[in-house]
Amino acid sequence: MTYCVGLLMKDGFVLAADTRTNAGLDNIATFRKLHNWSQPGKRVFALATSGNLATTQAVVSLLTEGTLSLRKRGAVDNLFNAKTMFQAAQIVGRAVRDVQKSDDSQLFQSEDTFSASFLFAGQIGAEPPRMFQIYSAGNFIEATADTPFLQIGEHKYGKPILDRVSDQNMRLGEAAKLVLLSFDSTIRSNLSVGMPIDLLVYEKDMLKLERIRRIERDDPYFRKLSTDWGKALRQAFGAIDEFDI
Amino acid sequence: MTYCVGLLMKDGFVLAADTRTNAGLDNIATFRKLHNWSQPGKRVFALATSGNLATTQAVVSLLTEGTLSLRKRGAVDNLFNAKTMFQAAQIVGRAVRDVQKSDDSQLFQSEDTFSASFLFAGQIGAEPPRMFQIYSAGNFIEATADTPFLQIGEHKYGKPILDRVSDQNMRLGEAAKLVLLSFDSTIRSNLSVGMPIDLLVYEKDMLKLERIRRIERDDPYFRKLSTDWGKALRQAFGAIDEFDI
Repeated sequence: MTYCVGLLMKDGFVLAADTRTNAGLDNIATFRKLHNWSQPGKRVFALATSGNLATTQAVVSLLTEGTLSLRKRGAVDNLFNAKTMFQAAQIVGRAVRDVQKSDDSQLFQSEDTFSASFLFAGQIGAEPPRMFQIYSAGNFIEATADTPFLQIGEHKYGKPILDRVSDQNMRLGEAAKLVLLSFDSTIRSNLSVGMPIDLLVYEKDMLKLERIRRIERDDPYFRKLSTDWGKALRQAFGAIDEFDI
Repeated sequence: MTYCVGLLMKDGFVLAADTRTNAGLDNIATFRKLHNWSQPGKRVFALATSGNLATTQAVVSLLTEGTLSLRKRGAVDNLFNAKTMFQAAQIVGRAVRDVQKSDDSQLFQSEDTFSASFLFAGQIGAEPPRMFQIYSAGNFIEATADTPFLQIGEHKYGKPILDRVSDQNMRLGEAAKLVLLSFDSTIRSNLSVGMPIDLLVYEKDMLKLERIRRIERDDPYFRKLSTDWGKALRQAFGAIDEFDI
């Protein structure tokens, strides 16, 4: 499995993905699942992927080839000529459908299934940053003020903290902290999600991607976060009245 | 779905189950999933059930009929003549297998599957209290000092807090608080788990079941717990350094 989470705030967005892939418990590996494309000053995009690695890598490659084709005449629709984030999300959706069309019948024959989902966030020009969750059918939903976070993969362990704390008025540093706490809960409880974590923080209107960090197992901030949070939780737990039955 | 959780401490055990059953989102109902049998002064048993309601109710009825048959000569093995909790767990496992044998081929024909799991806890005489998780195959595992909690049903949302706080040296009132917090996280994040919650607290060597409570949506303790916990979490969150990327 995988865990990816994105938070869309008024000030920008935070997107993070773990790096563990597995085909069975005895066959695990580390792969980057957080990808990005940008034309500094014009547009930025980030994509977090979950599901069959062959599928998600093919989608990323198609999107990259699309952006490279821009230099040629008669370039097809691609991330670098999309006029809005909605159009860009449609382009990702089409890439998902293209891979599905090419692989689905073969996968079906081997009793495998087409499974992939994506978090896609970015900003184009003067349009505010937007964030989408794209399904394996290529359709998508968009994060809104009501629910500013989106999750894919092994999402249940890390959801209670997001349900309780997330808020679109958070500062970016707070949002990054929240995302990492959500990861910490997930990684503690589920073996199929593993460090390192790739984290991207985007500040609205910067139109360039500078804040991308790989957080390793021994990252001092992450270790402190995890320890402090454990302590704070136990303190908070202790401060609440016991149940008197 | 369902959520049930049990904690086994040195001082006794706590077992809790929600009461929501559903066949589709538009067909929900309230059913008790926490059952108990006892011979005061001799033995106590509690069973929390998850899975197909027809299956779990049949298992409960078989166990109850077994205890009633005790008065007759030549009574079969049942909860009231088991000599140890291990034997009692085997009796529950056999009841599960009996129901499976009778229903499985029919369920298979209607493309349904046999699914049921159970948390079974109790104490017989001088033996310490024990707690088991019984699978739909009728086999089971037992809670130990390493992992004093067991969960069935929709277990992921409520697991991080158990992973962090549970301890077999907890007082019973603390354990009940922890169980209710685990429920609060689950109920907030998942519609298929719903109030009221049935909660049973058993103090070691009492050999009677007196502390059984149904906790309704407007229960003052539960409401306060949920509010205080939310506040404490947000405070704890605020007290941790922001991520500086």
